[in-house]
Amino acid sequence: MFVTFEGPEGSGKSTALRAVSEWLKDAGHEVLETREPGAGEVGKKIRDILLHGEELLGTTETFLFLADRSHHIKSIVRPALSEGKVVLCDRHADSTVVYQGHARGMDVGLLRELNRIATDGLKPDLTLLIDLPPEIGLGRITNKDRLDAEPLEFHEKVRHGFLTEAQLEPGRWVVVDGSHDPASTAAACFESIIERLKGN
Amino acid sequence: MFVTFEGPEGSGKSTALRAVSEWLKDAGHEVLETREPGAGEVGKKIRDILLHGEELLGTTETFLFLADRSHHIKSIVRPALSEGKVVLCDRHADSTVVYQGHARGMDVGLLRELNRIATDGLKPDLTLLIDLPPEIGLGRITNKDRLDAEPLEFHEKVRHGFLTEAQLEPGRWVVVDGSHDPASTAAACFESIIERLKGN
Repeated sequence: MFVTFEGPEGSGKSTALRAVSEWLKDAGHEVLETREPGAGEVGKKIRDILLHGEELLGTTETFLFLADRSHHIKSIVRPALSEGKVVLCDRHADSTVVYQGHARGMDVGLLRELNRIATDGLKPDLTLLIDLPPEIGLGRITNKDRLDAEPLEFHEKVRHGFLTEAQLEPGRWVVVDGSHDPASTAAACFESIIERLKGN
Repeated sequence: MFVTFEGPEGSGKSTALRAVSEWLKDAGHEVLETREPGAGEVGKKIRDILLHGEELLGTTETFLFLADRSHHIKSIVRPALSEGKVVLCDRHADSTVVYQGHARGMDVGLLRELNRIATDGLKPDLTLLIDLPPEIGLGRITNKDRLDAEPLEFHEKVRHGFLTEAQLEPGRWVVVDGSHDPASTAAACFESIIERLKGN
């Protein structure tokens, strides 16, 4: 099963992913924790360009995310899925549609088509959206980076973009309230995955 | 003026570009020599992934070429053009359409659209296609890399792809015979550029 964790910075999705991973292993599942961008050797090099290079155009960033994604899916995600593992991925295709499309104005339809090419048609079985008001998420972040320095309006667009995407494919998305404590967010994520695993 | 040099490996385009650059400088022009992929700091990092990393999917390569292109055009080519320089670029957008599209089977229309996004609509004023039979080009190459190890059929597709693109936009392309000595190839390239500069 391929599970992606989506949501804004400060939503607690990375913390939830790690807790869920431990609980799934305790329940006897084989789990792969991974992320985009930045998994594997090629991914680390791409992440390095994205985070530590010169300032990049939105289009340059988008193509780097897509390059990372296509290599990640082929070299890491698909092999793990074919070994029967539960793959937990911190950000994936929906982040590109939301950040580059809904928030920064690139064509959303084109981004979906590019994701389809980058993933060779693979879709997550379950996408967990950790949703919360931007004020709360931003308040939790101590190490401000480029994204966090965007105006509040940008973060509102991100939140609205994720909720819009979730409404378009309700069978794939579960919206989790991320405004409370990290333990209850993680527990809600775990319950959704277990329910889905029972249904499979 | 933005001039791109296109053609297969072993066509002598890089040699011609250097000779043309010297002649243009002797004639009083300011010239920028550049290439794709691999110009600038970001380009060098992307080129390193393309050439020295793990084996990559065609889609991963394509997205890396596009990321390199969008950054290259914005940070190097457009500034040089606005300073009035003649920009000579070793490979550009047409190589992606020909290698990933005509030769490897990706959708040619989609690749053209992605190039349009990556270049933000900038097109070369002149594209020099150094054309020659693959047997001659391959015979000149001593340091065989991944592309050169492809079967002859692949190189025939590349040649046919370049000639097809040149026919679609005859106002932009000039086809130069690359099967003779390097000096006459370079001279033919120089003449085409000078003719175009006089027309400007």
